[in-house]
Amino acid sequence: MFITLEGIEGSGKSTQIAAIARWLKEAGYDCLTTREPGGTSIGGQIRSVLLNPANDDMASGTELLLYVADRVQHLETVVRPALAAGKVVVCDRYFDATMVYQGYARGLDKKMILRLHELACGGLTPDLTLLLDLAPEEGLARAWRRIASDDAHAAESRFEKEKLAFHRRVREGYLDLVRKQPQRFAIIDANADVAAVSRQIEAALNVVLSFKC
Amino acid sequence: MFITLEGIEGSGKSTQIAAIARWLKEAGYDCLTTREPGGTSIGGQIRSVLLNPANDDMASGTELLLYVADRVQHLETVVRPALAAGKVVVCDRYFDATMVYQGYARGLDKKMILRLHELACGGLTPDLTLLLDLAPEEGLARAWRRIASDDAHAAESRFEKEKLAFHRRVREGYLDLVRKQPQRFAIIDANADVAAVSRQIEAALNVVLSFKC
Repeated sequence: MFITLEGIEGSGKSTQIAAIARWLKEAGYDCLTTREPGGTSIGGQIRSVLLNPANDDMASGTELLLYVADRVQHLETVVRPALAAGKVVVCDRYFDATMVYQGYARGLDKKMILRLHELACGGLTPDLTLLLDLAPEEGLARAWRRIASDDAHAAESRFEKEKLAFHRRVREGYLDLVRKQPQRFAIIDANADVAAVSRQIEAALNVVLSFKC
Repeated sequence: MFITLEGIEGSGKSTQIAAIARWLKEAGYDCLTTREPGGTSIGGQIRSVLLNPANDDMASGTELLLYVADRVQHLETVVRPALAAGKVVVCDRYFDATMVYQGYARGLDKKMILRLHELACGGLTPDLTLLLDLAPEEGLARAWRRIASDDAHAAESRFEKEKLAFHRRVREGYLDLVRKQPQRFAIIDANADVAAVSRQIEAALNVVLSFKC
């Protein structure tokens, strides 16, 4: 069982993934939580290249390939072994993020991104993708509050500098993916408070676990 | 005019690329010499990930994608702009190295590597590729002498640790590429002394420059 979380910056994925792990363990599932990019040591090094604010001349194709390189390492050394061992793998961002950020938002060819995914990752598709949906204005406001309080350094990262219009394209991209593959996605209203978001997620998990486990 | 140099470790590419640059400048050509991986700042960061001896659990697909990521950045920000400005670009390693090291030597699917190149790099092909051909026993002996005298750190890099059998597959891979595209390659006997190798290279350059410039 392979479950992914997607959503714009500030949509609460990190908080919810911890809650999902607790809930799955209490329900008796052997669960592994992980993330992309950076879910492996090598992925962490790749992530540092991606987030390095000095790398502002990075070509969009380079960025795409670095995300895919991180994903291949993560799939080969973390995700596939855990799935093979019968675990429920819950991953913070996966291929949909690449399609949305690089394709919908940066304008790279979407068919090319899909072909690259099939070529490099064997097209591995999640059983369930939880889309934490939120207006980008609210997501960015939350992200900035967190940055201001927690981590001055993060405020300098390349991605926090993206403009609101970019994050609107990201959100619209996610919603377009849901329209194309409604059976795989559950849309979660991430405007609700943390507990209410968790309840929506648990309902979606109950459905997919009762069908597939 | 896009010229690449290929060959196993110790085949003398670095020495010869400097000689080529001098020769082209004396002949009146505007010339740029560069290399892969690491021909850009971002590429240097990617190269560090590739060469980091701690990364011995790197999946072969990850390695492949990191080389392609480096190449895309290099093509977009260095090679294509220089070619567009009418320069002769001379590059130490290019796509053939990926095909040979990742395909022939590590056993990744060669058709997949070619499709990835077409997808990510638009399949840009050199006008001339100089293959500095050398027995791997001699190449490795040279490389080890250099490491012992110059750079103790390099001896720890992942690639110097490769076995002789691996470098034999690399050499055979290069020679197989020559058989498949004889019109693009010039085989240079790299067993000769430096001046004699340079004379062979200059003869090959004269042929291609008289045809194409």
